[in-house]
Amino acid sequence: MRGRSEETRERILAAAEECFARYGYEATGVAEICERAGVSKGAFFHHFPTKQAVFLELLERWLATLEGQLEKSRLSAPSVPEALLQMADMALQVIEMARERFFIFLEFLNQAVRDPRVWEAIITPYRRFRKFFTRMVEAGIAEGTLQPVEPEAFANALLSLALGLLVQAVMDPDGADWSATLHQSLQMFLGGVQRVPEGR
Amino acid sequence: MRGRSEETRERILAAAEECFARYGYEATGVAEICERAGVSKGAFFHHFPTKQAVFLELLERWLATLEGQLEKSRLSAPSVPEALLQMADMALQVIEMARERFFIFLEFLNQAVRDPRVWEAIITPYRRFRKFFTRMVEAGIAEGTLQPVEPEAFANALLSLALGLLVQAVMDPDGADWSATLHQSLQMFLGGVQRVPEGR
Repeated sequence: MRGRSEETRERILAAAEECFARYGYEATGVAEICERAGVSKGAFFHHFPTKQAVFLELLERWLATLEGQLEKSRLSAPSVPEALLQMADMALQVIEMARERFFIFLEFLNQAVRDPRVWEAIITPYRRFRKFFTRMVEAGIAEGTLQPVEPEAFANALLSLALGLLVQAVMDPDGADWSATLHQSLQMFLGGVQRVPEGR
Repeated sequence: MRGRSEETRERILAAAEECFARYGYEATGVAEICERAGVSKGAFFHHFPTKQAVFLELLERWLATLEGQLEKSRLSAPSVPEALLQMADMALQVIEMARERFFIFLEFLNQAVRDPRVWEAIITPYRRFRKFFTRMVEAGIAEGTLQPVEPEAFANALLSLALGLLVQAVMDPDGADWSATLHQSLQMFLGGVQRVPEGR
C-alpha cells in the first residue's frame, strides 16, 4: 500500500507533466502545479526544493522507462547483435517521446544549463547509457558474435548513431523514414564488426 | 573593391558575433550591436529586418565554412573512404566551434524554434549536408570503394554518427577522446561497407 506522502509526490509529478506539456516549462509556476495537483505549496516544497527538481525527476523517470525496455530487449534476445536490432525497433516510440517533450526540454536546458548541478543531473543518465552499451559490447565479444573491438569506442559509436538519428528525426520529421534508417544504419554498422561464430 | 554598404553589413555581423559571445543571444539588443558596429539603427535595419536575421546569417556562414572544408577534403582525397577519414580529422575543430556557440544557439532556438520560417532556415543547411554525403556515397559506389548500399541511408547514418558524436562531445567534453572516437567509429562503420577494388 502506498503511503499518503508518496501519493502526494506522484500527484505533483503528474500535474507538473501536464502543465509543462500544456503551457511549456517557463510559463508553468509552482502555483499552477499545486493547483492542478490539489496540494498546498507547503506540501510541494516538502517534496521538491524547486520546479527544476520536479523536471529532473520527470526526466529521470522517462529515461528509466527507456532503460528498462532496453534491458528487457537485452535479456530476451539470443545474441548481442540481435538485441541491438530489437532495440532499434523501439526507435519510433523513442522519437515520439522525444518529439513531444522537445520544446519543454529546450526551455529547461536554456534556463538551467549553466547550473553545474543540473548539468551533472543530465550527464548522469547519459553515462549510465554509455556503461550499458559498453557492457553489451563486452558481452558480444565474450559470446563470440562481435569482433574484439574496443568496447568503449563501439558503445560510443552506437550511442552516437542513436542520438544523431534522434536529433535528425526531431528536427526533420518528414525527412526520412527514421525507424527504417536506424535499422539500416545499424545493420551496416554491425556488418563491420559482427562475427559469424565458428561452426555455423 | 568592397562597396560601403557591404562593409557596413560585415561590420554589423562581426559586432553581433562579438555581442552574442559576450552577453548571450537574449541579452543582446539591436542597440548594442549598432553601438559596437558604429552604425545607426537605420543602417542596421537597411541590412537586416531583425536580430534573428543576423543570427541566421552568422549560422549560415559558420556552416558554409564547414561545407567548404568538407568539399576540399572530398576533392583532395584519392577515394571516398579516405575522404571520410580526412573529414573525421576536422572533428576537434568542429567540436570547438560548436562548444563555443552552444549557449548562443540554445538561446536562439528557444526563442525562435516555434517560428516556421526560422525552422526552415535551420533545416535548409542540414538538408544540404545530407545531399552532400549522399552524393559522396554514390561516388564511392561508382568508383568501387563502397559496396552498393542505399546511398541515402548510408548518408543518414554518417550524419547521425557525426551529429551524435558532436552532441556527446558538447555535453560531456571530458567523457572521451571524441576525435579519436569519431575516427574509430567511422573505421568500424566503413568496415561494414567498404570494398577492396578488384585487382588490388
